[in-house]
Amino acid sequence: MKSLSLWLFLIFLYLSTNKNVISATHYNEIPRLSPMLQKGILAKDNPIKESSLNIPQGFQKYYYEQTLDHFNYNPESYTTFRQKYYINTTFWGGAKSNSQIFVYLGAELELDSQLLSVTFPIENAPRFNAMLVYIEHRYYGESIPSGSYGMNFGYFSSAQAIADFAEVLIHVKENFSARYSPIIVFGVSYGGMLAAWFRLKYPHVALGALASSAPILYFNNVTAQDAYYSIVTKDFKEASESCYQTIRTSWGEIDKVALEPNGRAILGQKFNSCSGFIYPDVLKSTLKYAYAYAAQYNAPPGYPVTRMCEAIDGKPKGTDILDRIAAGLKFYYAYFYGLQGCLNVKGFTDSERLSSVVRGAGGWNWQMCSEMVFPFGITEENSMFPKAPFNLTAREEYCENLYHVPPRPDWASTYYGGKDIKLVLRRFASNIIFSNGLSDPYSGGGVVEDLSDSLLAVTTTKGSHGLDLYPANKKSDPEWLVMQRNTELHIINGWIKTYYADLIEITK
Amino acid sequence: MKSLSLWLFLIFLYLSTNKNVISATHYNEIPRLSPMLQKGILAKDNPIKESSLNIPQGFQKYYYEQTLDHFNYNPESYTTFRQKYYINTTFWGGAKSNSQIFVYLGAELELDSQLLSVTFPIENAPRFNAMLVYIEHRYYGESIPSGSYGMNFGYFSSAQAIADFAEVLIHVKENFSARYSPIIVFGVSYGGMLAAWFRLKYPHVALGALASSAPILYFNNVTAQDAYYSIVTKDFKEASESCYQTIRTSWGEIDKVALEPNGRAILGQKFNSCSGFIYPDVLKSTLKYAYAYAAQYNAPPGYPVTRMCEAIDGKPKGTDILDRIAAGLKFYYAYFYGLQGCLNVKGFTDSERLSSVVRGAGGWNWQMCSEMVFPFGITEENSMFPKAPFNLTAREEYCENLYHVPPRPDWASTYYGGKDIKLVLRRFASNIIFSNGLSDPYSGGGVVEDLSDSLLAVTTTKGSHGLDLYPANKKSDPEWLVMQRNTELHIINGWIKTYYADLIEITK
Repeated sequence: MKSLSLWLFLIFLYLSTNKNVISATHYNEIPRLSPMLQKGILAKDNPIKESSLNIPQGFQKYYYEQTLDHFNYNPESYTTFRQKYYINTTFWGGAKSNSQIFVYLGAELELDSQLLSVTFPIENAPRFNAMLVYIEHRYYGESIPSGSYGMNFGYFSSAQAIADFAEVLIHVKENFSARYSPIIVFGVSYGGMLAAWFRLKYPHVALGALASSAPILYFNNVTAQDAYYSIVTKDFKEASESCYQTIRTSWGEIDKVALEPNGRAILGQKFNSCSGFIYPDVLKSTLKYAYAYAAQYNAPPGYPVTRMCEAIDGKPKGTDILDRIAAGLKFYYAYFYGLQGCLNVKGFTDSERLSSVVRGAGGWNWQMCSEMVFPFGITEENSMFPKAPFNLTAREEYCENLYHVPPRPDWASTYYGGKDIKLVLRRFASNIIFSNGLSDPYSGGGVVEDLSDSLLAVTTTKGSHGLDLYPANKKSDPEWLVMQRNTELHIINGWIKTYYADLIEITK
Repeated sequence: MKSLSLWLFLIFLYLSTNKNVISATHYNEIPRLSPMLQKGILAKDNPIKESSLNIPQGFQKYYYEQTLDHFNYNPESYTTFRQKYYINTTFWGGAKSNSQIFVYLGAELELDSQLLSVTFPIENAPRFNAMLVYIEHRYYGESIPSGSYGMNFGYFSSAQAIADFAEVLIHVKENFSARYSPIIVFGVSYGGMLAAWFRLKYPHVALGALASSAPILYFNNVTAQDAYYSIVTKDFKEASESCYQTIRTSWGEIDKVALEPNGRAILGQKFNSCSGFIYPDVLKSTLKYAYAYAAQYNAPPGYPVTRMCEAIDGKPKGTDILDRIAAGLKFYYAYFYGLQGCLNVKGFTDSERLSSVVRGAGGWNWQMCSEMVFPFGITEENSMFPKAPFNLTAREEYCENLYHVPPRPDWASTYYGGKDIKLVLRRFASNIIFSNGLSDPYSGGGVVEDLSDSLLAVTTTKGSHGLDLYPANKKSDPEWLVMQRNTELHIINGWIKTYYADLIEITK
C-alpha cells in the first residue's frame, strides 16, 4: 500500500449526473475486465437489486436455487441463494429436433446490462433456431448469497461460478426435455475466460464455446507482465508517432510542473480542474486509465485512440506538452461519457478508499484479490508509460488488508492451466473459439494462434475488447468485423453439424 | 435405516488374530471399492498413524503442506495439512532428457499398503526411465486434516483430492526442474476414477492416465442399478449352472429354516457358528458379501468363484442346500483370509453400527454418503440374489443420520460427466486407458468400449478388479494378462513418443 500506482486492479468510475462536471474517481489506472456497455448504461458492479433496464421481449426471468459451495460438504455449504437467469424460446426449434441452445455466461456485473450489450447470440438465434439462456454470475446483480455483501466473499470464485452455470444448464435441459440439444456458451472478457474454461471443465454440458477477448493466459508465469501496456503503447504509436512521443514525455513534465511553486494550481488550470488544483499522482493515474481505456475500446467507426491522438497532435505548433495532453483527456471524456466542463478528480484517503472498494466496485476487486491476480506491470524501455513493475507483495498486502485473506496467485493456472497451452491442448479438448481484437491490450494475455483444428484463434488487427459480441451495425461495421463474426458462426455451425452426425451414429 | 440390506456401502472386515476363529463383521454386502491388497496386508481404511510396512528401497517419504479447501476463500480454507507422498528417482532419466514421471494416485486407504500392492508403475519404471511418485489421498492414512476424525468431513471430496494431486505434482516438477517431463497417472478402482478424472480436469498436469477398474459411469441416471450384481450372477452362472441354482434357492431356504423352532440354532450349526446360533439377516448379508467379493477378486490362477462353486457342487448328491452353501463360505474364508474354525459373525444395534462406522471404516463410508452414491440394486428376475432395489431415500436417511448433511447423488455426474460419454468425449479429451476385467462386477459401471482413438478400453474377459496393476507373476500370470499389460505399456509409450515429437516441434 505504498503508492497509488500499486493499486493496479480497480476502477470505480462514478459518473456525475451533472453533465457539465466531469466527476471521475480512479483508484486505479486500468479499465476493469468488463464488457463495454452500450452508451447510456452505467457500468456498476455493485449489486443492483431492481433493474431499471428494458429487457427485450421474449426473455422470461427465472431464479435457480443455487448451492452455495459445490466442493465442500460443511453444513453451511448447503445454503442456497437465488441465481437469476433469462430464457427466450422465441426462436427455438424445440426438443424434438434437438435444436440448440445459445448460452451467455454472465461476467463481473449485473446481468441486465449484459443482456442489452452482448447481443451476438440474440442476433443469430433465429437462423440457428436456438433457445437463448443468459445467466448471472454469483455475487453480481441479484444473484448474491445472503450475508453482508463484501463480508462473505469466501464462496466467490470462478470454479464455483462455472459449477453454478453447469447446474443451471442441466436443470434447464431437464425442464425442456432437451437432453440432446447441444449447448454453445458465449462470454466476453472475464466471461470469455469462463466460457473457455466451462468447455474445458464441463464438456458434457457445453458442446462448444466462443470466448471473446478472454485473457486466459494473463497469469503469473504464463504471460509477461508488460503484455497489457505494451499493446496500449503500440496502439498509440501506430496511431501517431508524435502523439506517442508527447505522451511519453508528459509524465516527467507533470512531475516537473508539480514541483514548481503553485505547481498543483498550474496543473489544475491546464486540466481545467473544478477545484482549481490537481495532485500530480491523481492526474497521472487518471491519464493512464484514459489511455488504457481508449486502447481497450478502440472500436470502429470512432477509433478513439486515433482521435485522441488527433486532439493531442492537432494543437498548433509550439503548444505546451501538457496542454496537448489536456486536449486528449478532454476528448476522452467527451467521446466515451459525453462529459464536458471542468474536471472533478479527487484523491482518497486509505480508509475512504477501502470502504468505497468494499461497498462499491467490490465484486471485481475481490476477484482481482483472490484468484484473478493478473500481473500488470510496466518494465519496457520504450513504453509510453513510466516504469511500474508488478509488485506481488504489494498486491498481497493490499488484498489481505482489505479482505483479511491472502490471494492465491497461482491457483488459476493450477486449476485451469495456461502454461505451454499449445503443447498441452493440441491433442486435448475441442470446440473453442478464442476471438481477439489485437488492438485490445487484453489480447496480450489471450490465445491468438490456433492450438489445434478445433481450438481456433479468430483475430482481427483492428478489433477492440469484446467487439465481435456487441451489437452489429449494418451501416457502420467494417468488413473485417462482419467477416470475423461470419467466421465464428461458420465454425459453430460446423461443430453442430458434426455433433448431429455423431448423435445419429451413436444413438441409432 | 429399515433393514440391513439397505446398508449397501460399507464393509468393515475385522480379522481376528486367532486364526481358528473366523471373526467377520459385515455392515454391508458389497466389497468396498478398494484395491485388493496382497495377502498378509490388512485392508484398513481407518487412519494408520505409523506404518508397519516395509517400504521398498529407493522410495523417499515427503510431506506437502496442502491447502484444506482449494475452491473456497473462507479463512479456515487456508488451513493446511501434511499430505504424504513418496518419490523414487532410482530409474529416472533426469530433467535434461525430459524423462517421464509415473504417478500413482492414492485411493481410499492409507498409502503404504498401496505402494506394496499397486506395483505396475514400479515394475515398469526401469524400462521407461521413469521417476515414481505415490501420493496419499486426503483423509486417509497420515494425510488427515486436523480436527476430530469423522467430525470434519466437509473438506473430504474427490474434487479437493484431485486438486491436491495437482498441487503436489506441480510442486514436484518445480523442485526437479522437470517442466517438460510428461506425467502419466495410474489408479485402481476409486483411484482409477480419480486418474481418469485427473486427466480430464488437469490435462496440463498429466499427459495421460491409466484408469484400472474405474466405474466412472456408476452414478444415478448413467448406469443401471443392477450392473454390479448382474455380473456377480454371471460369474457364478458361468462357473457352474448348478452352483448358481443352489445359491439362488438358498435364500428362501435360510428364511424357511429360520422360521422353524430353533431355526437360528440350526443355521448356527450348519454354518459352524461359534455362538451356536446365527441370525438369518446376518447370515444372508455375510453370504452376499462373500459372493460379491469372490467375483470382484476372481483372479487367476486361483479363480475363487470356480473353486467356491466346486465346494458347493462337490458335496455328495443329496446334500442339503444349506450344507452346500456352508461349504462354499468355508472355502471363501480359507481362500481369501486363511481363516478356518468356527464362524464368529454377529449383528449390531443401530447405535453400535453408527459409532463403529465413524470410528472405523469412516473414510469410504463418508464418500459413499457424499458424492460416491453408486445406486447398487437388484431388480432382475434371473439374479442369483433376492430382490433389493436401490432406495435413494433410505440411503439419504442413513447418511444424514450419520453425518448430519445430505448426500449429493447428482454431483459426480454434474462435475465429471458420464451420461452419453461416447457422444461427449469422442471429440474431446485424449490419452486415457480404461482397463477392466469383465469378470469384475464393477466393470458394469466402467468404460468397456473405445470412446475415440485415444480414449481406449482395454478389457479382458477373465480379468478381475484392478488385476492389471497388481504385482506381475511370471510363473502364474496367464497369457491374456501379460498381453493386457503389454498393450497398456504400448499405448502409454505411444503417448509419450507423440508428446516428445510435439515438444520438439513446439519448442524449437
